[in-house]
Amino acid sequence: MTEVMAGIDIGGTNTVFGLVDRKGNILAEGRMSTAVYDETDDYLEALAAHVRALVESTEPAVTLRGIGIGGPNGHYFSGTIEDAPNLPWKGTLEVADILATHIGVPAVLTNDANAAAMGEMLYGVAEDMRDFVVVTLGTGLGSGFVVDGKVMYGWSGFAGELGHVLVQENGRLCGCGRRGCLETYVSAPGIVRTVMEMLGDAPRGSTLREIPMSAMTARDVTEAAQAGDAVAREAFAKTGHILGLALANTIAITSPQAIILFGGLAQAGRLILEPTLKTMETMTLSNLKGSTRLLLSALMQRNAAVLGAAALAWGDMGNTA
Amino acid sequence: MTEVMAGIDIGGTNTVFGLVDRKGNILAEGRMSTAVYDETDDYLEALAAHVRALVESTEPAVTLRGIGIGGPNGHYFSGTIEDAPNLPWKGTLEVADILATHIGVPAVLTNDANAAAMGEMLYGVAEDMRDFVVVTLGTGLGSGFVVDGKVMYGWSGFAGELGHVLVQENGRLCGCGRRGCLETYVSAPGIVRTVMEMLGDAPRGSTLREIPMSAMTARDVTEAAQAGDAVAREAFAKTGHILGLALANTIAITSPQAIILFGGLAQAGRLILEPTLKTMETMTLSNLKGSTRLLLSALMQRNAAVLGAAALAWGDMGNTA
Repeated sequence: MTEVMAGIDIGGTNTVFGLVDRKGNILAEGRMSTAVYDETDDYLEALAAHVRALVESTEPAVTLRGIGIGGPNGHYFSGTIEDAPNLPWKGTLEVADILATHIGVPAVLTNDANAAAMGEMLYGVAEDMRDFVVVTLGTGLGSGFVVDGKVMYGWSGFAGELGHVLVQENGRLCGCGRRGCLETYVSAPGIVRTVMEMLGDAPRGSTLREIPMSAMTARDVTEAAQAGDAVAREAFAKTGHILGLALANTIAITSPQAIILFGGLAQAGRLILEPTLKTMETMTLSNLKGSTRLLLSALMQRNAAVLGAAALAWGDMGNTA
Repeated sequence: MTEVMAGIDIGGTNTVFGLVDRKGNILAEGRMSTAVYDETDDYLEALAAHVRALVESTEPAVTLRGIGIGGPNGHYFSGTIEDAPNLPWKGTLEVADILATHIGVPAVLTNDANAAAMGEMLYGVAEDMRDFVVVTLGTGLGSGFVVDGKVMYGWSGFAGELGHVLVQENGRLCGCGRRGCLETYVSAPGIVRTVMEMLGDAPRGSTLREIPMSAMTARDVTEAAQAGDAVAREAFAKTGHILGLALANTIAITSPQAIILFGGLAQAGRLILEPTLKTMETMTLSNLKGSTRLLLSALMQRNAAVLGAAALAWGDMGNTA
């Protein structure tokens, strides 16, 4: 019987899940609403029922070995999610323990970016790499560091907060309460803020003047840049420059074989990749120059969140009986 | 017979070495000039002879298990030193292989800061820690990162270049050729440069006005600060602030249990520790706040370089037959 891990990605709006074999094939997948559940217990019970039903209905039959979960603020050591700003529930949620009990197999949990890093190592562009970083460019900027073949959790379990590296003293206000965090500049909302600043700084023609800030998305900026809009192009250049500097500093600290960009803003492709690479290569310390590749995730076209969560489970539990 | 590792620290002026047992006792030690040797081969032959003589003359008799070497630009993977600016020889020096051949036991090599990190883990304040950072504040700023109980070498072998993190765009010129590296602000010469900038910025009374830049040392600044000199005290406050910011960013990335300060500038004690800690704690991301301790090395009063190099050997080779 084919052995599978369940990969579960908990998002604020939806939860997606799938059954993934050792080679990274998704044999079955599903989706449910997160937001409709007022109580965590009801949510986790429903999620467990969905996963069990998916296992039972899969043909040919599969054996469920374990569960990997990616979720906001997910804490690997304790298997809990604590005060995640995007989830409807507050406090400390014993997600891994409760799902393991309901489903009857071991469960392991981490945050989205660490799960993405496991996904790249097992099924993506980081196969055969032992030292690399995944940077997720979405609503925020997340990062997962793999050091010597293992995700770096740090003493607290919360290592890899590259989005909250301070890049500008008294810079932009961040959701974390501080000012100048990298993710206030480099993320989907970050590039929109850059466009707003530029439009405020000097009167320039741009199709982006027609979109209110509340409605403007990184995709709007991408489309404007692709259509040749100078403000949008310059916003990508600025964003890439700031990211490139932060990556040069990251290289100085952990010296990864590759940095892999993932997520909404990464889908802008060359628009973000080229200015980032230019600054990263210029600003990298000479004896480290050229040692780190900048790549785009290969999992963006697949169900990366489910693959990453399942990869976490395969990485942790794949070698046991 | 007591088993020992030889710890060797290669400096530009002198090379120090010692025999260290598993518990960190230095049973014998010695010193020789580095600078007088024009040829690497002559130097390494003389060093090997010194170490062999030290082993033979130690009573009660000891068994030499291996050799640990710390040196500038030391590359762990290859055992070589490449183009170290402070050493009299250029090119790639096969230090570990040559010493192993001459002395007849295995040898392992890394840079000074990584050796210091191993020293703290085996014999210093990081005993029982698996995630910490040693920051050496001397002529430059070096760092050794321990992640999950092992020194982080990265893909290139040159991870841990915290001194070359860029903290100021178009900032001070660094020996590496770039501008704005942390070590141009936070190091023994860095604080002297800060004093010079302050004296240039505004006419203020200070005993430091009497010392030419070519002669001024971090110790002069320390002594002036201890005597109440306002410029010197402010220079420490500025230096600590910049270091504190860089450490807050380091915490966001690797989340260590402790950051351990070591070296000449660290000997200023509270003068550097207090402003660093203040900024570090203020600027650390909320869910990581309070999770990382800032400590002074406990090995500064001992022969830390020899202990660190020997610790590297014990860490790598202590468990084999």
